Amino acid sequence: MPVRERTLATLVALTFALPPPLLAAPPPATEPVAPTPSPAQLLPQLQQAARSSTLAWERLAYLTDRIGARLANTPAMAKAVQWAVATLTADGHDNVRTEPVMVPDWRRGRAGARLLAPVEREIPILALGGSVGTPGVEAPVVVVRSFAELGPQVAGTIVEFNVPMGEGVPTIQHYGAAAAYRTGGASAAARHGAVAVLVRSVTTRSLATLHTGLMVYADDAPRIPAAAITTEDADTLDRLARAGVSLRLRVEMDAADHGTVESHNVLAEIRGRQRPEEIVLVGAHLDSWDVGQGAHDDGVGVVHVLETMRLIRALPVPPRRTIRAILFTCEEQGVYGGRAYAATHGGERHVAALESDLGAFRPRAWGASGSREQPGWLVDAARPLGLPVFAGGGGADIAPLAAHGVLLVGLYPDDTHYFDVHHSPADTLDKVDPQELTEGLAAFAGLAWLLANTD
Amino acid sequence: MPVRERTLATLVALTFALPPPLLAAPPPATEPVAPTPSPAQLLPQLQQAARSSTLAWERLAYLTDRIGARLANTPAMAKAVQWAVATLTADGHDNVRTEPVMVPDWRRGRAGARLLAPVEREIPILALGGSVGTPGVEAPVVVVRSFAELGPQVAGTIVEFNVPMGEGVPTIQHYGAAAAYRTGGASAAARHGAVAVLVRSVTTRSLATLHTGLMVYADDAPRIPAAAITTEDADTLDRLARAGVSLRLRVEMDAADHGTVESHNVLAEIRGRQRPEEIVLVGAHLDSWDVGQGAHDDGVGVVHVLETMRLIRALPVPPRRTIRAILFTCEEQGVYGGRAYAATHGGERHVAALESDLGAFRPRAWGASGSREQPGWLVDAARPLGLPVFAGGGGADIAPLAAHGVLLVGLYPDDTHYFDVHHSPADTLDKVDPQELTEGLAAFAGLAWLLANTD
Repeated sequence: MPVRERTLATLVALTFALPPPLLAAPPPATEPVAPTPSPAQLLPQLQQAARSSTLAWERLAYLTDRIGARLANTPAMAKAVQWAVATLTADGHDNVRTEPVMVPDWRRGRAGARLLAPVEREIPILALGGSVGTPGVEAPVVVVRSFAELGPQVAGTIVEFNVPMGEGVPTIQHYGAAAAYRTGGASAAARHGAVAVLVRSVTTRSLATLHTGLMVYADDAPRIPAAAITTEDADTLDRLARAGVSLRLRVEMDAADHGTVESHNVLAEIRGRQRPEEIVLVGAHLDSWDVGQGAHDDGVGVVHVLETMRLIRALPVPPRRTIRAILFTCEEQGVYGGRAYAATHGGERHVAALESDLGAFRPRAWGASGSREQPGWLVDAARPLGLPVFAGGGGADIAPLAAHGVLLVGLYPDDTHYFDVHHSPADTLDKVDPQELTEGLAAFAGLAWLLANTD
Repeated sequence: MPVRERTLATLVALTFALPPPLLAAPPPATEPVAPTPSPAQLLPQLQQAARSSTLAWERLAYLTDRIGARLANTPAMAKAVQWAVATLTADGHDNVRTEPVMVPDWRRGRAGARLLAPVEREIPILALGGSVGTPGVEAPVVVVRSFAELGPQVAGTIVEFNVPMGEGVPTIQHYGAAAAYRTGGASAAARHGAVAVLVRSVTTRSLATLHTGLMVYADDAPRIPAAAITTEDADTLDRLARAGVSLRLRVEMDAADHGTVESHNVLAEIRGRQRPEEIVLVGAHLDSWDVGQGAHDDGVGVVHVLETMRLIRALPVPPRRTIRAILFTCEEQGVYGGRAYAATHGGERHVAALESDLGAFRPRAWGASGSREQPGWLVDAARPLGLPVFAGGGGADIAPLAAHGVLLVGLYPDDTHYFDVHHSPADTLDKVDPQELTEGLAAFAGLAWLLANTD
């Protein structure tokens, strides 16, 4: 245990560096024995270790560069599961295991669109997750800026939803309204007879970048193809349509659903020394969309979880409660891993569930959901970390635990640039600042430690 | 001439709004006759008209949305030439005409790369202008960060040049060093036996965006395929290579040279009232790369030229010298229009040549090249515009006139974001700020007017 020995030495040094007590203690009669440090005393050591972790970056680089994008049904995801199990095992945790989860076997294939009038040119598109494909559909284009604009005029057309994501900090507050068109636009347009939909990429900044994401078909509408287009092309077609120019487009997409396949959640524990049956869950999702590298979304969260576990295990005292790490599968395509976990484990005694799924930026706040008294308890417990707690939020993977009354807590970093890369080929390691990665880790590990030890 | 009448009315109103002279003039004995305003007096009116031009935006929107990208050998470029001739004719200019220029008939076709090891995935690439294609070449990848790193180790490999563009204002000062790898990388690597090159996109900001641009083969090296890759992929391959991971890639490209075809420069004049044989040239290039819309590069310059001509013609007094507008063809692929113009017209009496080819951002300075005494003359003439003049610069299209001793002047806006979109699919109308477009126009038209009237 060289790591643990080094840590103890550091702690002793730290203890001796503390200011002297107000009343001088009498000199010890015998050789001094260092007292067991309290959880609160260990917090600075844990956070310092987090801030100086180089493994956080190295592990993220391995996951992004050597495994890469990892849609739940792919060999890359299976490789990521193996890597996570091997890492958690090597770090010496308890009960390292996988749990099977059936996930959609949706495959993207190729996609392309061609503007036929007024100018003939290619329009890059990216199938939305879950969309059906088409060998080719050609139709006039109708551009709308809200669901309310849909009507009989879209029958037989390709509908473009051009609803810009709002701007302003925090950015995530504007995400839902824009993403609603991505999620539900196809069925809404299909009810009026549309033959395909193109949805403006959900982002506030674009350099001709396509952003994918989940779409869901309603049962009462035909299943029509749905793809993202760039904000640039969305605006160009909108300007032309508003100038009275007739637009005509051809869309081809291979995307298809091939049923379901087995993937896995990955779990591991640090067993609590006093209340092992009480669980503090620390989670992130191991899967990603199949473009980019899944760096901010959610490789960063994966590393926050792995490093939280490693650094807490390296402390000289185990936590009072059990800390359970979970790396969820298939969050992107509908929270399959999160729902499976809640169905199997929801009845266990979860004191709190923490998630990191908003990237590696400077920590800004905690968002908490749960029963009325729980957030108050959280505010007290989190006080040493110096970050505010706001009501609401948590994380997609842990959300299914709400039905079991579990306190849900999400790490909310500054998200000014998160949606620049979210679900796009630009979600790559170079967008991650190593220092901000470890700042997030220091907060995340700190809260896990405090919640696992508080009264 | 309703425009001219309105302009005159504005001028009269402006004249009467001037502060009274220090000595009161005696009351006129007869009905006052407005004196012919001097060129200096007309400058504020010209600049005000430029700042309030809505046609600037409308013309740019037409060029970008309805004509679109316009590589010199394409039907879109021919359409742009027709549109420019029609616009200049409708604006009532003199000697509106085209002059033929033979340009390369290079065609991009499709391009793709696939990383085969260590992770198998697609790597988007974009052929560099002028590159040969390949039905498919598969080889190990060697990453270099300078020409000096090329050596025997690259024989039989695909060389990646990963040389980031430097940062700092003005951005253009960092462009040449990075673009040198795009221009000359293929031949430099081929001399050492490389079979293809991938060049990091020349930009300081990327959201998985590919930037094309001209490449040139040397006579003493085999012609190997050359394509841009994103900064994200350039960094990923670099990190893997430096970690000792063996990389293997397959590249396919349709790009091919099909000889030459005829394109056209477009010219028009406002004949000088006193020295018609002296020419102030105002130019920009009408062609663009075949990705995006050629908005900042150089649709903005085209509109600066068109609107400068329209607004000066609307003034109540013609300029003393002739102002000649020129919209060059085929700047992007090697300044074909600029060289043809200099060859035909270089011997004429050009007092100065102005170019706008750095986009629609807030004007920052003039860059001037020419004989020793000329810039001093420019500094005096440009003083009313309030922008500094630095030595050096001009513009690619007008550069061939240097051999004829012509004073070359370029408009240098704040270029912080110019290279974010330059030569990429993100060079689109939404990136242009309408107010900054007309701020640039006010400066450009102002200088054209002053140079055409100064002593």
